[in-house]
Amino acid sequence: MCDLDSFFHRVSSTVDKELDRLTTPNRYSTSVLVDAMRWSLFAGGKRFRPALLFATGGTFGIDDEQLVSSAAAVEMIHTYSLIHDDLPSMDDDDLRRGRETCHRRFGEATAILAGDALQAKAFGTIAGDVNLDDSLRVKLVSGLACAASRMVTGQQLDLEAEGKNLSIEEVKNIHANKTGALISFSVLAGAMIGEASESEVEIIRRFGDEIGLLFQITDDLLDVSESTELLGKTAGKDVESQKATYPQVLGNEKARELALNVAENARGELDKLDSDSTLLRSLIGFLVERRN
Amino acid sequence: MCDLDSFFHRVSSTVDKELDRLTTPNRYSTSVLVDAMRWSLFAGGKRFRPALLFATGGTFGIDDEQLVSSAAAVEMIHTYSLIHDDLPSMDDDDLRRGRETCHRRFGEATAILAGDALQAKAFGTIAGDVNLDDSLRVKLVSGLACAASRMVTGQQLDLEAEGKNLSIEEVKNIHANKTGALISFSVLAGAMIGEASESEVEIIRRFGDEIGLLFQITDDLLDVSESTELLGKTAGKDVESQKATYPQVLGNEKARELALNVAENARGELDKLDSDSTLLRSLIGFLVERRN
Repeated sequence: MCDLDSFFHRVSSTVDKELDRLTTPNRYSTSVLVDAMRWSLFAGGKRFRPALLFATGGTFGIDDEQLVSSAAAVEMIHTYSLIHDDLPSMDDDDLRRGRETCHRRFGEATAILAGDALQAKAFGTIAGDVNLDDSLRVKLVSGLACAASRMVTGQQLDLEAEGKNLSIEEVKNIHANKTGALISFSVLAGAMIGEASESEVEIIRRFGDEIGLLFQITDDLLDVSESTELLGKTAGKDVESQKATYPQVLGNEKARELALNVAENARGELDKLDSDSTLLRSLIGFLVERRN
Repeated sequence: MCDLDSFFHRVSSTVDKELDRLTTPNRYSTSVLVDAMRWSLFAGGKRFRPALLFATGGTFGIDDEQLVSSAAAVEMIHTYSLIHDDLPSMDDDDLRRGRETCHRRFGEATAILAGDALQAKAFGTIAGDVNLDDSLRVKLVSGLACAASRMVTGQQLDLEAEGKNLSIEEVKNIHANKTGALISFSVLAGAMIGEASESEVEIIRRFGDEIGLLFQITDDLLDVSESTELLGKTAGKDVESQKATYPQVLGNEKARELALNVAENARGELDKLDSDSTLLRSLIGFLVERRN
């Protein structure tokens, strides 16, 4: 676990430095908007998606330098989605990562615009990455755009599902889009930058789907089991707002069983790779045991 | 004027067909979200930015086929910005292009998500355009991302300016970002796809800045002079919400004079080009004489 701690630390410090550089105010930015973007970007997130991207890129022998702009782009898309999801007309949340949500701090209009600006900057960041050749940048922009579209689709499905009784397949479909797509893209991007072969990309794609599913189940389980203080966001919110979650559809125990099975499937995909996937395996373990 | 009518018609029908294709529901989209995107995309906009892009591309001898995905992308960014600007926490508008705004029709959450989805799709559309080589796609994504960031900055500045007494320079700065940046990008994109020389790109860049300014002044003048019925959006709204506009800062007459001067400057830039810029000149005339 100690190795994983130092890996998370390396990822955070590398990605945070890049995010800081990317959001340094310039002549086209207003201070309030930049403050709002940075408020949410630097709220102390785990940088889990960047960690997945770094770990997958590392599996294919790629240095951090070639991964960092894609990792920052993924984190910007993730952060924008949190800002918009927290809005009064969506999940109406006051607390995120232990502090006020963006709209509580800066007002609703600025929060919407900060999210919008982060999305634009994510795509611009990949397109402007001189460490990657043009064809790779084009593929990464395409992949990220597809993931970002699916994420929004998932959020819409999630809103439509509130208060309804869903089947496990319907819940899976919501989350495969809402959180799964961007998590899958994070590992895929690492493989793409790592010039993985077609068969390796297919393995990583399946691994990405499993890890996305695992992330969501364990996230849902945390919401029912942990306190607001530990989570840094309002606990028990899913139940209160009748969200479509795995524990709600399966019960807590079966949801935990499912998580273990999915973790096993994810490890099974990594078994098919020739390269050293120690870090990716540690990230599976991290999700299974996570407490926040 | 007849030629310009048939040009606008050609642009609309070409771009609308592409937008229709791009927003055809697929397995990753929900019907409500797609309905909301299409509601605003097909609300009868003039497709002025695509027209600028087609006219500039045509000036450099480029066929519509190579221009259409960039034109559709620009229109998607423009449409998403209208959806978000109309939200209750921003301009709180009920009417747009003669019908209900997106949030009035589909609710606030879905309207926010429809805007978000359109932005993602805009970048994905350029990245996925097989008619353009990779290096051009990368440059277009970068340019569009920069324009989209500036647009959001301008909207934030506009919100902050409400009720304040601004100088003409401050008003210009707001609009150069809020509407100017995307209009400038529209002409620049046409020149980039047309493989314009560096000096031609500089001319087009200056032309783009002038046409963006001209667009905004004439838009502001329409708001004070025309009826809600003719505009298809709530007339007099700028005055009511104490928006920073050219007529407000300069008075109507001086704003009209400024528009004529800016039109002259825009024509002056086109004089420096060797290629036939008849269509671009007609578009200047269109703005000067526009009634909606």
